[in-house]
Amino acid sequence: MTADRKIAVVGAGLVGSGWALVFARAGYSVQAYDPSAEVRGRLTSWAEKSLHELESAGLVSESGDILSRISVLDTLADAVDGVFYVQESVYETVQAKTEVSLALDAVIGSDTIVGSSSSGIPASQFTSECSNRERFMIAHPVNPPHLVPVVEIVPAPWTLEPAVERVSDLMRDVGQVPVRLTREIDGFVLNRLQGVLLNEAWALYEEGIASLADIDATIAHGLGLRWSFMGPFETIDLNAPGGIEDYAARLRGLYAGMVRTPPPGPWADEVIRKAAQERRAILPADELAERRAWRDAVLGRLAAFKKSQHLTD
Amino acid sequence: MTADRKIAVVGAGLVGSGWALVFARAGYSVQAYDPSAEVRGRLTSWAEKSLHELESAGLVSESGDILSRISVLDTLADAVDGVFYVQESVYETVQAKTEVSLALDAVIGSDTIVGSSSSGIPASQFTSECSNRERFMIAHPVNPPHLVPVVEIVPAPWTLEPAVERVSDLMRDVGQVPVRLTREIDGFVLNRLQGVLLNEAWALYEEGIASLADIDATIAHGLGLRWSFMGPFETIDLNAPGGIEDYAARLRGLYAGMVRTPPPGPWADEVIRKAAQERRAILPADELAERRAWRDAVLGRLAAFKKSQHLTD
Repeated sequence: MTADRKIAVVGAGLVGSGWALVFARAGYSVQAYDPSAEVRGRLTSWAEKSLHELESAGLVSESGDILSRISVLDTLADAVDGVFYVQESVYETVQAKTEVSLALDAVIGSDTIVGSSSSGIPASQFTSECSNRERFMIAHPVNPPHLVPVVEIVPAPWTLEPAVERVSDLMRDVGQVPVRLTREIDGFVLNRLQGVLLNEAWALYEEGIASLADIDATIAHGLGLRWSFMGPFETIDLNAPGGIEDYAARLRGLYAGMVRTPPPGPWADEVIRKAAQERRAILPADELAERRAWRDAVLGRLAAFKKSQHLTD
Repeated sequence: MTADRKIAVVGAGLVGSGWALVFARAGYSVQAYDPSAEVRGRLTSWAEKSLHELESAGLVSESGDILSRISVLDTLADAVDGVFYVQESVYETVQAKTEVSLALDAVIGSDTIVGSSSSGIPASQFTSECSNRERFMIAHPVNPPHLVPVVEIVPAPWTLEPAVERVSDLMRDVGQVPVRLTREIDGFVLNRLQGVLLNEAWALYEEGIASLADIDATIAHGLGLRWSFMGPFETIDLNAPGGIEDYAARLRGLYAGMVRTPPPGPWADEVIRKAAQERRAILPADELAERRAWRDAVLGRLAAFKKSQHLTD
């Protein structure tokens, strides 16, 4: 295996494990590491089980070959040895991200690029002291990355453009969908879009406009259907005879009239508690894990459906 | 056909036509009317073509029987004759809605209920002068209603609760998913959620954070996948080990940090023009109609997929 086919996965929790599958199923050799021996020890059996599910959904074949491309290493230095790319997925605090970035900085090769799975903290907040900081950036997936393809690529002010290009190419090559941000912004694009929708959903719930289950149904049986294969702009572009400009002319007044001033948020303690009670009535706490497994199984079958419909790029 | 199986569809454009299919495929007899003879004349051939597509997707059988349950009438009085429910889908302005509501008010039976497809204007703005106003409400679908099941039920302050119950039951009976709003609010739930997401998307685009296509990809290959079968609350409930309360404790600070003050909107003219240019480069204006047909075909196959996965209620 040549160096340009070797990738390190650092942090092997749920997100890192998913990444190991993404790279291995695309033919790359994965060197995985986690500081916790217990977490490291779980990776192989988890990957085996997940590959079986992917095979059932018709998304992979030759699971054995894929599994054989994932090695679990006992030290960070061994994991990054000879790799051209590191996908870092440790716990998301500035402190943890800073520590792992400095540790990586000390052991990576002179061309190695590092992408962090950070979902909202930009790279400038934890890579400024790295001597290789121009090859550090954000490569933020959705959980689980082997079932949801989008990856946000977010450069720090000092990240070199060729490194950004290289990671975008890699993501396309492994079947993910890279989204390029031109610069850092808190929450990036994905969690900003999720955030505004959640803030409004919490406000509607707090005001008693609809139940939690009914607000969920509005998305799951309404808006979410189109959004599972078209973005918000394409959706409105197709929703007026003359396209997006026509849509804006007809409806921007309606939307402007809904803007809340001040904007909603932060979420209130007592509303969160009430929502938690309502959710636990729908799904008891001891069934959360089972429901997560169900979600991932559906996401796998949805991925297979989208592939069959040529909706994956 | 007894009265409790007869429904009038008033306004037979795209939304009204979809409603005719929804009710007819569930076994109801539909009496359709539109003030335009040209629009009335198109309904049957459109329904035939759409039923053929639904049959291809495995969503209906016996198209001929379904089609035979749709009658097109030449007057409003004939259309509402003997029906227990009227689904009104005329052009969405306060004036047009007021006119049709008063016209319906004059000819409906003493028990007939009227649901308006209004997507944002509440019923209190156009039914106050109706003598039967306690049986008028909003029943807002997503376009096209025969492929996207959610229906927002929004009572005016004077709407009677039994009428609201009756429409909710009807919607469930015909395979739609009713969402109950306790009271009126501009944009209801669905377009408020769409609106805040669009406002943020426009702001990100205006700031040059990402291209229109990349913002779309963030939803279509990211957030939209989970949202096509789970709402935003269930999504976050499953996204932290301890459920929604745990998620809120971990992430509400991140989301609070993203709130824009003042909130974004209204959409600026020059940004809309730029977006329109970007969209027309992706999809020329003369291909919009074809792409809409493609969208509906995909929605049909997605509906069949969700049905096969028991994700439809």
